[in-house]
Formats: sequence, structure tokens, C-alpha cells
Amino acid sequence: MSYFGEHFWGEKNHGFEVLYHSVKQGPISTKELADFIRERATIEETYSKAMAKLSKLASNGTPMGTFAPLWEVFRVSSDKLALCHLELTRKLQDLIKDVLRYGEEQLKTHKKCKEEVVSTLDAVQVLSGVSQLLPKSRENYLNRCMDQERLRRESTSQKEMDKAETKTKKAAESLRRSVEKYNSARADFEQKMLDSALRFQAMEETHLRHMKALLGSYAHSVEDTHVQIGQVHEEFKQNIENVSVEMLLRKFAESKGTGREKPGPLDFEAYSAAALQEGNDETFAGSQGLSPSRTKPAGAGARATCSCRFPGARFRDMSRGG
Amino acid sequence: MSYFGEHFWGEKNHGFEVLYHSVKQGPISTKELADFIRERATIEETYSKAMAKLSKLASNGTPMGTFAPLWEVFRVSSDKLALCHLELTRKLQDLIKDVLRYGEEQLKTHKKCKEEVVSTLDAVQVLSGVSQLLPKSRENYLNRCMDQERLRRESTSQKEMDKAETKTKKAAESLRRSVEKYNSARADFEQKMLDSALRFQAMEETHLRHMKALLGSYAHSVEDTHVQIGQVHEEFKQNIENVSVEMLLRKFAESKGTGREKPGPLDFEAYSAAALQEGNDETFAGSQGLSPSRTKPAGAGARATCSCRFPGARFRDMSRGG
Repeated sequence: MSYFGEHFWGEKNHGFEVLYHSVKQGPISTKELADFIRERATIEETYSKAMAKLSKLASNGTPMGTFAPLWEVFRVSSDKLALCHLELTRKLQDLIKDVLRYGEEQLKTHKKCKEEVVSTLDAVQVLSGVSQLLPKSRENYLNRCMDQERLRRESTSQKEMDKAETKTKKAAESLRRSVEKYNSARADFEQKMLDSALRFQAMEETHLRHMKALLGSYAHSVEDTHVQIGQVHEEFKQNIENVSVEMLLRKFAESKGTGREKPGPLDFEAYSAAALQEGNDETFAGSQGLSPSRTKPAGAGARATCSCRFPGARFRDMSRGG
Repeated sequence: MSYFGEHFWGEKNHGFEVLYHSVKQGPISTKELADFIRERATIEETYSKAMAKLSKLASNGTPMGTFAPLWEVFRVSSDKLALCHLELTRKLQDLIKDVLRYGEEQLKTHKKCKEEVVSTLDAVQVLSGVSQLLPKSRENYLNRCMDQERLRRESTSQKEMDKAETKTKKAAESLRRSVEKYNSARADFEQKMLDSALRFQAMEETHLRHMKALLGSYAHSVEDTHVQIGQVHEEFKQNIENVSVEMLLRKFAESKGTGREKPGPLDFEAYSAAALQEGNDETFAGSQGLSPSRTKPAGAGARATCSCRFPGARFRDMSRGG
């Protein structure tokens, strides 16, 4: 529907001016959209960097203790979130390029349009000019008529009456010409104004369709990222759930465990007999020219002895409240 | 399953030390979790503030032009996003309080636990002590046996042999006592170590369950916000779709429109007759003591004249490329 062709007339014929200045806002809103998206891209980039920093915080989590493996879940999740927001930043930066490219096209269209509507501006000015003459011409005619009427009432001479009548006729003729000029200017204005209004509307329509397509692209990028972020959150939740408490305890026990063999009890008879056997072996080994190794433990009893070598000193600080 | 009761034995009996130091990491990981959530809360707060700033950018979008109403959609959406992230910030700040509260409880539990495992530390040290005596005692016994054997082979006097045998018996007795002490210390250690391992595991299990509950709460808050953000995005997309190009054109035409009445054509006869009528009215009005108003337009023709009053001068700058 031709909204512009209908709503921009009115008493003062400001319509063309209003339309022209509004249409000039098109490239401004395009620039503003680019600024808005740029700001959003910066926000996403900042968020992405902060998430990468958060990921480092997670990877600095103490590697000791049973909770340690869960830091990896945090780290992975933060890294992925950082990536999602970085990807959005890049998509928005690409979109800004599209917006700016459109802005350049738009400026060309506007320049062309300006050339096309110049004649409407002329028509507006011509109509304005003749409209200013019209009341003067009309007043002049009215005065002549009143003069003639006054002379008639005062029964002035026929000669004076004839002179007055001639003046009235001239004034009427002048008024007729003014009316004709006005009608011609008005018709020209109406046609050109309608043309321009339709042209402006078509331009705005194209502009708005283009802008809405850009907004669609913006919304699409944001939504895409939102879906990805949702997957990262879901993954995080699943990973936390998957790492059961039992698994953490087992993992810890297996990785930090010191061994499953308890120190065995010693049997005196076996232990002393083994010592003697060891002594005999050494005597024999000595006669074979091997170096003596009396203190070296061997056999079951010796293993038990070995199990008993405690780093006792290392615990002392603990009892002092370390 | 008792993972701790199984995996922390081994040759050097370091198990208790490893477990004790690992369990001490519990409060550290709690503190680290609080730090992590605090950092995340700060990130969300920063994002929220940036979004509020973005909303202002949107509300500063040019109010002229057909695109103007769409800035409102941007503004509302940015405001809502700011709110979502602010709400997440607050939820995370509450969660930090929960984490810190748990951290305090945990420290109390750890203090109590430390008191309970002190006797295990003693048992470890006693076992370490007797284990160091054992090889010496064994070596002494072995030497006595070898001395006795050597004397026997050298056919030494019975008196010397008896002396050597007495020494061997004493050494055997000493070794037997050492073995008994070791066995007693070992049994005590095994029982206490097992008790402590189970106690440590129970503590870690409780710790991990608590931490996982906190992580669940964290994931829940993040997910809640994610759902809300999704709604804001959906709303944004819908609002953009709902504001059709036609609606924007109509809205613009209706709000910025200058009027729907075109300047009408003038009919000379009617226009001049109206002028005369006006003149007569004024003469009449003048005789009634009313002020003259010759220039005041009246009737259809006069309305048309009125429509023609152009602000022609205002367009001049446009033709100069304004």
C-alpha cells in the first residue's frame, strides 16, 4: 500500500521535506546497526577471553586430592564456552562487513535518488511562489470591486465608473492568470510529489527488507551460538554426573596408591633359619670370589624386613600440627 | 568398596602419609571451587554491564526514519539479556556463600579427623622403629652363629665352644624379642592403618558428594539462565518478524505524516466570487464594529490558498546537496 503517497500532503506541504529527511536517515541507521553489532562482537570477545582465563584457573586446580579429575571437566567446559563466544565474535565481524557493504550500496542508491527527486523540489518551490502571489492578486481584485461598488453608490460620473470597471476587469484578468498558474503548479506538484513519495517508499521498503535480512542473520548467529552453548552446558552436566564419587575414589586410589601388599608377620624360626641360610650362601659366594653382602635382605623374611623401612621422620611434623 | 583400605600399603608404608596429605587437599579444592565460581560470577557481571551499555546504544539509535521502531526491539532484548546475566551473577554469589559455609564445616571435620588418626601416626612410627632394629638383631645372630661354626671347624676348646653357644643363644633370644616386637607393632599398624584408611575414604566420599551437590547447583543456575536467554533470543526473533516492513512503513507514515489532504485545484469563478462575498461580509462586519480581516482565507478556495503556503526557503539547502 502506498502509505507515503497518502500521508505526506497537508496544509503546509511539508511532506516532501519530511520524507526527504527521513529517507536520509537510512544510511545512518545502517551505520548505527554496524556500530551496535561491533559493540556486541566486542562484548562476546571479552567474554570469550574471560572464559579462556577461567579455563586456566580450572587447570591450575590442585592436582592432588580426590576432586582433581573434576577440574578437567571445568577446564574443558570453559574452553568450549570460550570457543563458542569467539566463534560468535567472528560471525558478527563478518556480519559487520555485510552491513558496511550494504551501507555503501545504499549511499549510491541515495545519491541516485536525490538526482531523481530534484524536479519535485522545483515543483514545491514553484507552487510556493505562485501561492504567495495568489492572495495579493485576490486582494487587488477585491479592492477594485469595492472601489467600483463605492463609486456606483456615490453615483460618480460614467467616465470614472468606466475607468473603475476597466481596472476591475484587469484585476480579474490578473487573478485569473494567477489561479491558472497556481492550478498548473499544483497539478505539477501533485504528480511529482506522488512520484517521489512512491519512490521514497520503494527505497525505504528495500532498505527495511535489507536491514531485516541483516537482523535475521544477526539473530541466527546469536541463536546458533546459543544452541552450541547449550550443548556445552549439557556436556558439563553429563560429565559431572558420569564421574561418580566411587569412580573418583577408585581413580585416586589407583593413581596415588602406594601398593596393595601389607607388611607380613614374621615367623622367628623361618626368619632366623633364612638368616643362617643367607650366611652359608655368603660363605660359599665368598669362596667363589664374590663380594660379601651380609646386609642384603633375601627370602620371605627379608621382604618383610624391607616392608618395615618407614620414613618415620617425615611424619613428625604432622603430629606437630603440619 | 574400600579403595583406600586396599591401595595404601606397599613396601615403604608411605600410604598413611599419602592419604593424609591428599585428604588435606579437600579444603583447598573447596576454596578453589569458590574462587572459580567467584571468577565466573565476575565474568557474568561484566557481561551484564556490557549488555546494559549495549541497550543504551540501542536506545540512542536515531528516532527518525522508518527503521527507528526496531531499535526498541534491540533495546528491550539487550536489557533482558543484561538482566539474565545479572541474575546468574546473584545466583552464583549465593552459591559462593554455600561453598564457603561448607568449607568451614569441612575444616572442623578435618580437625576432628586429625585428632582421630594421631594414634595411627604413632603406630607407623613404632613400626618404623622396630623395623630398624630387626636387621641389626638378625645380623648379630648371624655373626654369633658363624663364630660358633668357625670355632667348631677349628676344633676349639669345649670352654670356648660353650661361651660361643651361650652368645648365640642370647643373640637368638634377642632376635626372637625383636621379631615379637615387630609382629606386635605390625598388627597394631595394620589395624590402625585400616581404620584410618576407611575413615579417610568416608571423609572423601562425603566431601565429594558435597562438592558434586555444589557443582550440580552451579550447573543448574547456569542452565536456568541459559533457558531464559534462549527465551530472550526467541522473543527477539519473533519481535523482529512481527514488525513487518509494511507495518514500519505505515507506522512511519502515520507518525511523521504531514496530512492526507492534497492542495485542491482552484476554480477562478468560485474563488473570485468567494472573494467578493468575503468583501461584503467584511463591510457588514465592519459596520457591526468587528475588526477587518481581509487576508483571512475562507471557503473552499481560501482553504486551497492556505494549502499553498510553502516553506520554500527550507528546501533551498537541499538542492545544494544538503
